[in-house]
Amino acid sequence: MDSNTIRNGQYNSPFRMSIMRIGDLAKTTGVPVATLKFYLREGLLPAGTPTAVNQAEYDDVHVRRVKLVRALLHLGGLSIADAQRVLAAVDDETMPIHDAFGVAQDAMVPKLDRSGTRYADALAEVDRFVRRHQLRVRPGAAVRGMLADAVVGLAECDLLGEPVTDTCELFDAMVPAMVEQAEREVATTPHPALRAQQVEHTVVGTVVFEVAYAALRRMALEHASAQRWSAP
Amino acid sequence: MDSNTIRNGQYNSPFRMSIMRIGDLAKTTGVPVATLKFYLREGLLPAGTPTAVNQAEYDDVHVRRVKLVRALLHLGGLSIADAQRVLAAVDDETMPIHDAFGVAQDAMVPKLDRSGTRYADALAEVDRFVRRHQLRVRPGAAVRGMLADAVVGLAECDLLGEPVTDTCELFDAMVPAMVEQAEREVATTPHPALRAQQVEHTVVGTVVFEVAYAALRRMALEHASAQRWSAP
Repeated sequence: MDSNTIRNGQYNSPFRMSIMRIGDLAKTTGVPVATLKFYLREGLLPAGTPTAVNQAEYDDVHVRRVKLVRALLHLGGLSIADAQRVLAAVDDETMPIHDAFGVAQDAMVPKLDRSGTRYADALAEVDRFVRRHQLRVRPGAAVRGMLADAVVGLAECDLLGEPVTDTCELFDAMVPAMVEQAEREVATTPHPALRAQQVEHTVVGTVVFEVAYAALRRMALEHASAQRWSAP
Repeated sequence: MDSNTIRNGQYNSPFRMSIMRIGDLAKTTGVPVATLKFYLREGLLPAGTPTAVNQAEYDDVHVRRVKLVRALLHLGGLSIADAQRVLAAVDDETMPIHDAFGVAQDAMVPKLDRSGTRYADALAEVDRFVRRHQLRVRPGAAVRGMLADAVVGLAECDLLGEPVTDTCELFDAMVPAMVEQAEREVATTPHPALRAQQVEHTVVGTVVFEVAYAALRRMALEHASAQRWSAP
């Protein structure tokens, strides 16, 4: 059995696996051939099986990878370099799933200048927040910096109404619901399934649901703004 | 009374307004002089009051604007062009607050290729979702496309476990809490205050809280992943 015969945790007959030229890969995924060639050049998509000079065949693994790459680049807004780091973690079969998820998570946090005392103070708040809720978040996880970015922004842009001693305390009440929802999301990881598929699922879920939740919140804000500022 | 004497909805004495050179603007905001000059060149920051050849003075309005620009570019990930569109809406005193918020919201949605039937179907789902919940979201609002992006991604990346007829129905149960939270956020808009400050507050709140909520969710996911895949 090779890596193509398992999909979504179910065993499929190898005969059901699709073998296709690059033109059909483009049709199946909706990604133009020129973009697929770019993905190949950048190592975001593994080479197909050569069948003749300048010709290769692709299969379901490539279809899945194209969709993952598109989600990372377009929905996640990742740079090519960060997408490469995520995919390297997905593909490293020696790396335990949770470690790979950590590498991918770090690659998905925007690179910003995080020097200065304001940021250091915010990061200390975040560290206390993580300890207070006994969250299993790595000490050096980049996502701590992401929350610290927001903490600095909330204070600087006067979004808190009045100064608070610990901004993260505002989020304390949300933690149980957040963890519960995250546990539900992680529980949807296909099982049994190949390790790579499980990592992919967790990584792409982080990105795609994040866009969904952000869009829902923005819609709710537009609605609330209309109720507040505009005639019914 | 000029635009500098009101801050956060409270009337301050004009004597408390800070007047500063560009070096002090850099110190106050933590943004390097070179970056401030870039903001000035790109029209993201209004020119200071000239005091001598090659010298100008800046005040609290500039401090606030620098923080807004930084939040849009760094936390919101906006392009210079999109940030310019947001600021134009903030500064257009003839534009009602809710309209300005709409322009800003549209500028904050990433530009993606949204052609093809998959996207059209997803957008139709989103339109039904908005109608079903009687959300006051403009018919052409870009945020509808943002949710449609996520709907396409959820289906393509097999994140739904099994095919569903209407992905947006998954979000139905979340709407009341989302709207309630949005109403609380909009209610924190300073009042009474200058129109520009009210628009700024709503715009920057969209961006900064979004980063905070995304970071909190990612932390919860890392925690849930550790619980699921890693030894305690």
